[in-house]
Amino acid sequence: MTNYKLTVAYDGANFHGFQRQPKLRTVQGVLEKALTKMAKGKHIEVIGSGRTDAGVHALGQVISFQYPGKLGADNMLKAVNSLMPLDVIIKNSEIVADDFHARFGVVKKTYQYRVDCGHYTDPFKRFYTGHYPYPFEVQKIETALNDLIGEHDFSSFAASGGVIENKVRTIYQATVDYSQPNNELIFEFTGNGFLYNMVRILVATLLEIGNGRRPEHDLLRLFEVKDRQEARGTAPASGLYLKEVFYK
Amino acid sequence: MTNYKLTVAYDGANFHGFQRQPKLRTVQGVLEKALTKMAKGKHIEVIGSGRTDAGVHALGQVISFQYPGKLGADNMLKAVNSLMPLDVIIKNSEIVADDFHARFGVVKKTYQYRVDCGHYTDPFKRFYTGHYPYPFEVQKIETALNDLIGEHDFSSFAASGGVIENKVRTIYQATVDYSQPNNELIFEFTGNGFLYNMVRILVATLLEIGNGRRPEHDLLRLFEVKDRQEARGTAPASGLYLKEVFYK
Repeated sequence: MTNYKLTVAYDGANFHGFQRQPKLRTVQGVLEKALTKMAKGKHIEVIGSGRTDAGVHALGQVISFQYPGKLGADNMLKAVNSLMPLDVIIKNSEIVADDFHARFGVVKKTYQYRVDCGHYTDPFKRFYTGHYPYPFEVQKIETALNDLIGEHDFSSFAASGGVIENKVRTIYQATVDYSQPNNELIFEFTGNGFLYNMVRILVATLLEIGNGRRPEHDLLRLFEVKDRQEARGTAPASGLYLKEVFYK
Repeated sequence: MTNYKLTVAYDGANFHGFQRQPKLRTVQGVLEKALTKMAKGKHIEVIGSGRTDAGVHALGQVISFQYPGKLGADNMLKAVNSLMPLDVIIKNSEIVADDFHARFGVVKKTYQYRVDCGHYTDPFKRFYTGHYPYPFEVQKIETALNDLIGEHDFSSFAASGGVIENKVRTIYQATVDYSQPNNELIFEFTGNGFLYNMVRILVATLLEIGNGRRPEHDLLRLFEVKDRQEARGTAPASGLYLKEVFYK
């Protein structure tokens, strides 16, 4: 058996998320079907760096799997791509040490979140951005992003239903760029881990800060109160992109 | 009653085409539902400049309809937009003479067709381009586009099932641009009318000419033979955009 690490981009608009589910079109399902076909029916189990929800996109999701025989990394790339639907591509392929594990080996991840700020959203952005047609000051959002850097308890920013007890995570980088021609806000967050819906809840809260409906340093209060009810909104899945996954 | 002319853009990926169909999500259906609601239940019939198929997009579809009362053009724009789903926007609104008719008044139309030329298509282009991952020479396509200008019998380029007897149409402009950063070919065709699937069949044939699988002047032969079997392919709906509709 050979251990492979593949970097995968996908348009999540027409997937029921990453994780395999019976009878539903999922990214893991599509990948495992292709690899199992290549392995002449022997089931290949794909490990992802983490799940992405229905409608969430990936520019650089990472997967790993054990495959019988020793296909070169390039041939693996070509073979899998030839079996992919058009909304999934393999961007990179490597043969890695047997102990590489796409989920357990993650040291940090970068998520991007794109927000269309137009008064009426561009009809071609519906599945590819969130939407915030209200006034905002980028400066206020930047102030709040500074509060985000470092180690914090993100209990206020975790969707209920998660099973993880420890909600302390470290954010290394958090930026926002306003793209004039597209009238889009582009957020990027790099951290050692993200709770369920954490980026989407953060973005909804940051937009309220930008709009002045919350004080600029409201994140500090939200870290203290540890109460999901206080953060309220969740930005839609359509704007979220898993951009990059980092390993040791 | 007041007669309105609206310019509409839509992402066709999640519509079963323009034309109203029972129980299916169509652009005409969405527009008529909104207008009928605005008119307090009085059914408003929307006339489109022409149909677009499932998956075909519009940058500038034109519709007209008679509406009770005299809402200003700007207020009509705002009211309809407030009732549109995110994948449809009204870009312009005018009050027009009673004899304006969005279909009968058309004097010419411009269609755009986008082709992703990457070896593996970008997963985010699946629903928004056609795909041609083979070599081509733009020069050959340009030569063929010159043959297209003028009045021709397009019988070889009409999908069967059409009911129109006269298949002579005039093409005023036909261009192709290769966009380096996106690795896309962008075709534009302006003509006094287009038969069913005509643009998509033309694009498939033009790509074969660009690739060298057909002689550069094969269009001239295809105009002569008047045989759909000779043109063969049909480029996918996903790359087609109704760009502009012109009236007297």
